[in-house]
Amino acid sequence: MTTVGILGGTGPAGSGVAIRMASAGYDVVLGSREPSRAAEVAKGLTPRGSGSVSGAANEDAASCDLVIVSTPWDSAVATTKALREQLANKIVISMVNALVREGKELIPVYPPRGSMAAQLAFALPESTIVGAFHHLPADQMLDLDSGLDGDVVIFSDDDAARQRVADLVDEMPGLRGIVAGSMSLASAIEAFTGVCISLNIRHKVHSYVKLGGFKD
Amino acid sequence: MTTVGILGGTGPAGSGVAIRMASAGYDVVLGSREPSRAAEVAKGLTPRGSGSVSGAANEDAASCDLVIVSTPWDSAVATTKALREQLANKIVISMVNALVREGKELIPVYPPRGSMAAQLAFALPESTIVGAFHHLPADQMLDLDSGLDGDVVIFSDDDAARQRVADLVDEMPGLRGIVAGSMSLASAIEAFTGVCISLNIRHKVHSYVKLGGFKD
Repeated sequence: MTTVGILGGTGPAGSGVAIRMASAGYDVVLGSREPSRAAEVAKGLTPRGSGSVSGAANEDAASCDLVIVSTPWDSAVATTKALREQLANKIVISMVNALVREGKELIPVYPPRGSMAAQLAFALPESTIVGAFHHLPADQMLDLDSGLDGDVVIFSDDDAARQRVADLVDEMPGLRGIVAGSMSLASAIEAFTGVCISLNIRHKVHSYVKLGGFKD
Repeated sequence: MTTVGILGGTGPAGSGVAIRMASAGYDVVLGSREPSRAAEVAKGLTPRGSGSVSGAANEDAASCDLVIVSTPWDSAVATTKALREQLANKIVISMVNALVREGKELIPVYPPRGSMAAQLAFALPESTIVGAFHHLPADQMLDLDSGLDGDVVIFSDDDAARQRVADLVDEMPGLRGIVAGSMSLASAIEAFTGVCISLNIRHKVHSYVKLGGFKD
C-alpha cells in the first residue's frame, strides 16, 4: 500500500487533499515544521473509509512512498531542497502556485523557470515532478459533504508518473484526474489558480474548474 | 442596436463567436483582409433569431460599435494598429491567445507585456481593452445544437466595460459571462487556452471551461 506524505500539509489546501486521499484508502502523513501542530490538525480530520491521516515532521512526510508539496510558494524550494535525499527516486507532486495578493485579486507571479513545478524539478533532480491539485477550493475539499465535483489537471514530463497520479486522483471522492500534458503547460495551469481565487473573492464563491466536453 | 465587428473573423474561433452573437440578436460584421472570403464564410453561417452575419473588410468590421479581435496572435498588433482611429473610444475585445504547437501540445508564449491583451492595450491607447472568449471550442461554438454550456472568463481594467461584455455574453446561447478581474489576470486566462487545446489533442475531445461553485 502506498503511503502519502504532504509537506506543509497543515494549511487548508494540504489538509483538503489529505482528507480526500485518506478517504480513498491511503495512509497520509501531514508534515509540518511543527510536528505537534501537524498532529493537532490531523486529529481534526475525519476521513471516510480505511485510510488515515497522522501528523508529523516534514522529514517524516518526505519518507512516504509518494510526496506532495503543499508549502507556501516562497518556501517550497528551500523546504524540498533540504529533503532532497528522502525525495530521490520518488514521484513528488507539486500543488504549489506562486500568487501575490493585489487588492481584490490573487495574481500569478512567474518564477524564473516559468513555474513552481519547474523550480522544484531543478531543486530535486533525482525526483519525478508531477503537477496536480492546483484549482481546488480548500473549504470544499475539507468538507466531504460539499458536493464538490472538480477536475484535477495534471502535468509532468514523465508519462507513467502523470498517469499514475491521474489514477490516484480518480480514487479520491469528488475529483477526476485529467492529464493535460508536459511541464510546458505548468505555468498556465499554476497561474490559472489565481483566476479561480480572484473569482472567489469577487463573487463570494468557492469556484473550481470542471472541464466540459469530456465523456464522464 | 449595437453592431459587432470581428477582425480576422473568418477563422473557426471568430466565426463561432459571430454565429452565437448574431443568435443573440446582434448584427455582426466578419472582417477579413479578403472581403470576398469573409462574405463567403458569412453566407455559410445561419444564426437563429433576429441578428445577422455579413462579411466585409477588416476596416468595415472596425467601424462597428463594438469590435472583437480574432486574428492570429502574431498579426493582431499590426492589424489593429492600422485601424487605431476607427477603434478609438470603443470597447475592443481581445480573444487572442499566443500559442505555439510543440508535438501534441499547444503551449503558451508570453508576449513582452505578459499577454496579448496587454499588447493590444499598448497598440490602441484610445480603446478600452476587454479579454473574453478564450477557452471555447470552435466546432461546438459553430454548431448551435452542440449542447455547449461554457463559461467565458472576462477581464479588463475598466469595470463598466467588462461588466458590459459579461452581460452581452449572457445573451449568447450556451455561454455564461463571468468577470474575473483586471488585466493582471490576462496572462493566466490567455495561457490556459493552451491547456484546453492540448487536452483536446490528447483526449480527442472538445473541452471547455465550466466553473463549478457558482449559483446558476
